[in-house]
Amino acid sequence: MVGAFFAATLSSAFAEEALSLRGMGSFHVGGKLVEISGRPVKEVTFTPGGVPAKVDPNGTYQTGQMYVQYFLPQNERGAAPLLLWHGGGMTGVNYETTPDGRQGWLEFFLRKGWAVYNSDAVERGRSGWAMYPDVIPGEPVFLTTANPFERFRIGDGAGSYNGDPAKRKYLTGSQFPADGYDNFVKQIVPRWTSTDQMIIDAYIAEVDKVCPCVIAFHSQAGQFGFKVAQARPDKVKALIAVEPAGLGDPAKADLLKNIPVLMVYGDYVEQDARWPAIRKAGTDFGDKIRAAGGSVDVVNLPTVGIKGNSHMMMLDKNNLEVAQLIQDWLAKKGLSK
Amino acid sequence: MVGAFFAATLSSAFAEEALSLRGMGSFHVGGKLVEISGRPVKEVTFTPGGVPAKVDPNGTYQTGQMYVQYFLPQNERGAAPLLLWHGGGMTGVNYETTPDGRQGWLEFFLRKGWAVYNSDAVERGRSGWAMYPDVIPGEPVFLTTANPFERFRIGDGAGSYNGDPAKRKYLTGSQFPADGYDNFVKQIVPRWTSTDQMIIDAYIAEVDKVCPCVIAFHSQAGQFGFKVAQARPDKVKALIAVEPAGLGDPAKADLLKNIPVLMVYGDYVEQDARWPAIRKAGTDFGDKIRAAGGSVDVVNLPTVGIKGNSHMMMLDKNNLEVAQLIQDWLAKKGLSK
Repeated sequence: MVGAFFAATLSSAFAEEALSLRGMGSFHVGGKLVEISGRPVKEVTFTPGGVPAKVDPNGTYQTGQMYVQYFLPQNERGAAPLLLWHGGGMTGVNYETTPDGRQGWLEFFLRKGWAVYNSDAVERGRSGWAMYPDVIPGEPVFLTTANPFERFRIGDGAGSYNGDPAKRKYLTGSQFPADGYDNFVKQIVPRWTSTDQMIIDAYIAEVDKVCPCVIAFHSQAGQFGFKVAQARPDKVKALIAVEPAGLGDPAKADLLKNIPVLMVYGDYVEQDARWPAIRKAGTDFGDKIRAAGGSVDVVNLPTVGIKGNSHMMMLDKNNLEVAQLIQDWLAKKGLSK
Repeated sequence: MVGAFFAATLSSAFAEEALSLRGMGSFHVGGKLVEISGRPVKEVTFTPGGVPAKVDPNGTYQTGQMYVQYFLPQNERGAAPLLLWHGGGMTGVNYETTPDGRQGWLEFFLRKGWAVYNSDAVERGRSGWAMYPDVIPGEPVFLTTANPFERFRIGDGAGSYNGDPAKRKYLTGSQFPADGYDNFVKQIVPRWTSTDQMIIDAYIAEVDKVCPCVIAFHSQAGQFGFKVAQARPDKVKALIAVEPAGLGDPAKADLLKNIPVLMVYGDYVEQDARWPAIRKAGTDFGDKIRAAGGSVDVVNLPTVGIKGNSHMMMLDKNNLEVAQLIQDWLAKKGLSK
């Protein structure tokens, strides 16, 4: 199984022509320092048999920083860098190789000539996290392996997940890679519900450093994408909202009137307990941008013949078909040569 | 300041010829499932104004998995993949762009023709973490911004760190990039001291998937590199131990007799409170491998004219000079064309 997975990874890597980069790397943006005092000094042996070191928990802690990894194509054809912002409980790994070993959106858009900046939101992944509730307010939320199965419209309702892969009930026609679910849950990281402003501040720091740009964002990052664009409207050339679960400030919709917006929704929305309301909030927000003179295109994938997509459409078996739809929209907007 | 940092990043990216890859991507390896029961169900609104979702904390959790990101050069000149394993409190970010925006070891070795696999140890970075102490035993250790300054031989002793960058006392002749320290602390992540076996299991899973290989490891990963090589001696072609703070099982040193080992130590060891003992433990372990018939080269950088290196030599201003020393050693061992 592991061997087969790796073979698939390598064969997909070999299938295309070489990827030519003019650069790659990473950096952290944003964050602040927080003081902690009045705690006792600890002696910690970091490695068994190692030499003990004193760890004084009092002092200054870094928090709120965000990790960004970038890849710059040799022949750039995007009008500006493309920023990829993942959803809640996730990291930038969502946009890399899919859990069943296929090419992800990061490499797809890189091969289309976009300079791609892929980040981990504050307190997740390579952005690191800090003591809570002292330094990060609130508590983290941990997801069971079963939790996303229904919530992300992969299985068909409460109880449809079963630990035994052979017995799981996938939605009829689901594009989610059934042989990848167990690897998918390995991508999940804890997330807070109390750090939205810290995350917005860090994304603004990224935009100030990297943009003008196009921003593609997913799920929880819906509020980050729209709010950051409202904070820096002159720096954003287009917004791709992939099933946004949060939104911008409706009272400031006019700030988005010069930024073309694409909203993309997958399949199985009507039959879900939560997604009709989430999508309606999204399209209502889109209506407000339109009413202010802006341009918003909403694509419900099944209505254009792309069926079976879960909330995690960047991982689905037809993930590159959805990416191509986004790429075509960007080209139509004059943002990709 | 941020602008200048980014300009440096880009100029270093432009300075060299294009990087040609035949593939890139990521995957998770290893891990296990843990059951939690008897906890109350919570209702969580993940996004302000969003639709509340029930989160049942009871169920199955994934833990112990490890994130690996890989880059495959078009013209491979390494005899096998090169695995980079970071030290405690860190992630694979250590090997990417340095905190002051220069090329890191990952890109250096990739440009030398190595297929490079860069990972985040279990419970760190993109590997994710889980509830503690229920799922991950023990508690995490958090580092203040000051903590690594002395411990990593950057500043000259207790109290030599000062929050004000202009007042920090760096060791005389230090190669650590003074203008990068504040960015360096953004790379720090919490780490446990109770997860060594989980980490070893995940590294073995990586080795079983990727190797035969060469493994370069730093600091805390000293014990992981040597112990994993002892568990899979036929799969390891060479070991590069960069200031190992932990070691293998001395009773099984003979398992390493067919694996050439390079140990590299930086500057300022003698004057430090802890590092003479750490280095002696390392070279004593090397002696045991030699006594069993193995080959161990120990390089104290100052004795070969490379001075001023901290514990974080992959970040130091002369980081590529140290990388070149490692590359030359690998070539001498017949492992790089």
